[in-house]
Amino acid sequence: MIEKAEAGRIEAHLRQLARFSDGETGVTRLPFSPAARKAVAYLTKKMQDAGLKVHVDATGAVHGLRPGKNFRRIILGSHYDSVPQGGAFDGIAGVVCGLEIARLLQDKELNYGLEIIAFNDEEGVRFGAGFLSSKALLGDLTVEDLQNCRDKEGISVYEAAKAAELTPDNLPAERWELPKIRAFLEIHIEQGGVLEYQQVPLGIVTGIVGMRRYTIEITGRADHAGTTPMDMRHDALWPAAAIIKEARRVALACPGAVATVGSLLMSPNAVNTVADKVELSLDLRSMEVREVAHMEQQIFQALAEAAEVAAVTYDIKPSLASQPGFMDKELISYLQTSAKKKEIKTMNMHSGAGHDALPISAKVPTAMLFVPSKGGRSHCPEEWSNGEHLAIAVDVMLDTILKINQEESL
Amino acid sequence: MIEKAEAGRIEAHLRQLARFSDGETGVTRLPFSPAARKAVAYLTKKMQDAGLKVHVDATGAVHGLRPGKNFRRIILGSHYDSVPQGGAFDGIAGVVCGLEIARLLQDKELNYGLEIIAFNDEEGVRFGAGFLSSKALLGDLTVEDLQNCRDKEGISVYEAAKAAELTPDNLPAERWELPKIRAFLEIHIEQGGVLEYQQVPLGIVTGIVGMRRYTIEITGRADHAGTTPMDMRHDALWPAAAIIKEARRVALACPGAVATVGSLLMSPNAVNTVADKVELSLDLRSMEVREVAHMEQQIFQALAEAAEVAAVTYDIKPSLASQPGFMDKELISYLQTSAKKKEIKTMNMHSGAGHDALPISAKVPTAMLFVPSKGGRSHCPEEWSNGEHLAIAVDVMLDTILKINQEESL
Repeated sequence: MIEKAEAGRIEAHLRQLARFSDGETGVTRLPFSPAARKAVAYLTKKMQDAGLKVHVDATGAVHGLRPGKNFRRIILGSHYDSVPQGGAFDGIAGVVCGLEIARLLQDKELNYGLEIIAFNDEEGVRFGAGFLSSKALLGDLTVEDLQNCRDKEGISVYEAAKAAELTPDNLPAERWELPKIRAFLEIHIEQGGVLEYQQVPLGIVTGIVGMRRYTIEITGRADHAGTTPMDMRHDALWPAAAIIKEARRVALACPGAVATVGSLLMSPNAVNTVADKVELSLDLRSMEVREVAHMEQQIFQALAEAAEVAAVTYDIKPSLASQPGFMDKELISYLQTSAKKKEIKTMNMHSGAGHDALPISAKVPTAMLFVPSKGGRSHCPEEWSNGEHLAIAVDVMLDTILKINQEESL
Repeated sequence: MIEKAEAGRIEAHLRQLARFSDGETGVTRLPFSPAARKAVAYLTKKMQDAGLKVHVDATGAVHGLRPGKNFRRIILGSHYDSVPQGGAFDGIAGVVCGLEIARLLQDKELNYGLEIIAFNDEEGVRFGAGFLSSKALLGDLTVEDLQNCRDKEGISVYEAAKAAELTPDNLPAERWELPKIRAFLEIHIEQGGVLEYQQVPLGIVTGIVGMRRYTIEITGRADHAGTTPMDMRHDALWPAAAIIKEARRVALACPGAVATVGSLLMSPNAVNTVADKVELSLDLRSMEVREVAHMEQQIFQALAEAAEVAAVTYDIKPSLASQPGFMDKELISYLQTSAKKKEIKTMNMHSGAGHDALPISAKVPTAMLFVPSKGGRSHCPEEWSNGEHLAIAVDVMLDTILKINQEESL
């Protein structure tokens, strides 16, 4: 009989890890930073305490392994980096849940190996890319990529890794042999308010949305707001309003999809001058590729029509595109069964944000659990998730690991 | 027989005056600045050359007078201050036209006195108010007002005037005795593109629009653009789009009215975050007070409805309100007759921008002529009006002055 997860222990780890921050407000733990190196040392020690054999790889990811009878293994974890002035839960909560699972399973004989992982640089803040460790382990990055990807000071991932006393040249040897991975499992905070609003303590993730992001620049003409009749204007702001309105309309008509204009800058931005330039961002997400395409088509059509009426020109620059990631159906059903057994209320949901599970789900059977985020807040000092909720996620995930472990396998 | 205005002479004055600028780009001639003092010296000299008796008043306005047989007088002029990095025509072109009229009438005996005036601080850039000289001369400002109105460095108009070797304490004695003013006449650049578009060399101003200006702040909630479903958002930008759309719709439905959102700032202004705060400006102008009220009502209703749907709050702060000013019907008919006599094509139009003629028209019979602005541009280095057009305005205005001069009077 395996004991239940201890919320207090999980909370204590998170409190301690929150102290590894470069800055006073919230948690700032950028890749290869002093705070990150302290977190790596702490995780190394705690993984060892849980009976794991620890290795820090070429990208700074911390691997804690205990072998099974079988050469295949289950990998469980999340990332330990944060955004600047972020919270004490995004990413690291999933790593700490992994530590707790390793502790609880320490004396249990397992068929599959178990690897607890703490990825580095999921957020992509410093080097502008993200998913560094997971993509590198999947074989999506080369040593050359590490050399070419640089931060604002011009320091490459490769150089930063070396400075952190890592050996980035080891990457080729450290890549995952995919057939040896039975499953990748991740526990993460929801970063949204749905679970809290629905009063459900656990979300079973069915997939991670696909995304398209654009920068749209509208060019009109600066004219005096008093002396230029409405029908002689070339107002760059008016078609922007058409985008904002159509984005909401079309996204509401696609259940589960979202469309956001989060950023808008206009020039000359003067009370008495018609705008000659508006630059705005458009972010479209859905589990359905065709829905993203549909939203894009409708919004761009609204823009085209408004631009013609306003006699302005525009330019649409794609800045990001990603395919949706689908969680493994069998693992989802295992998680549902485990939750039912433990009488935990769950809901199926997709993730509107990217996670390491996104690139991994393209190549390895993957599953994810979400715990509620207080007020839906994340990437801010107010970010908060309940230790009890994390313990519930641990218990359900652990039960599913045991279930996988019962499978016939090589 | 009075000779015709010389475009070359007008252009030469404007070229010279453009050199009195504090800064390289365009013309920067703020009230009481070194550039302004050079302009005052130049205008003083040129007014004297045209046979005028010159006096610089408490506010820095330059008055050049030639008495008539009658104790009443006709005042003609505009302002000599500019906006920062503005053009070489806004305001000063009307002063130079006055110089040319004084020169042409130098040897002509007149019944009314003629006063050429160069007002100071029409733009209101330095002290945030505007119409300084005209309002002071009308009796709308006291010496105490001059002491209380301060620039960003805390320097009052009073102190700036003293520093420029003026005597602001003289203001009470220098105020206009309104019954002694037969008419105020102003020539100004259009600052819009209507005359150029219509290919008409001269605009006869029928009035100056009334204006209401607001700062509108919309408060929503910052949420993750990926993880927050559309129906759980409190997006502060969406009601802003409703304002932008309704402003254009309702203004197009009120011929001659304009409505402008010229400035918009949003926060946190991040690609992947729903806006929690949007601050925008709304500027409404029309000759009809009820049209301004109608536009305001329609736009605020659209805002109220959108804010309810988006579940956000808002605050509307009025920042400016002015009544429309109506030009004198008799003087308008004189100008029309003069233009016809000289076979000059004109169009009646209102002014969408404020001028010294606005406060003056409330107390003195007032008339204004507009000359075309190239490309409708003003308040920028590209501001340009044709010397020939200015000469046409001078000839028409001069003919109207002679016409007024033939009136029976006290």
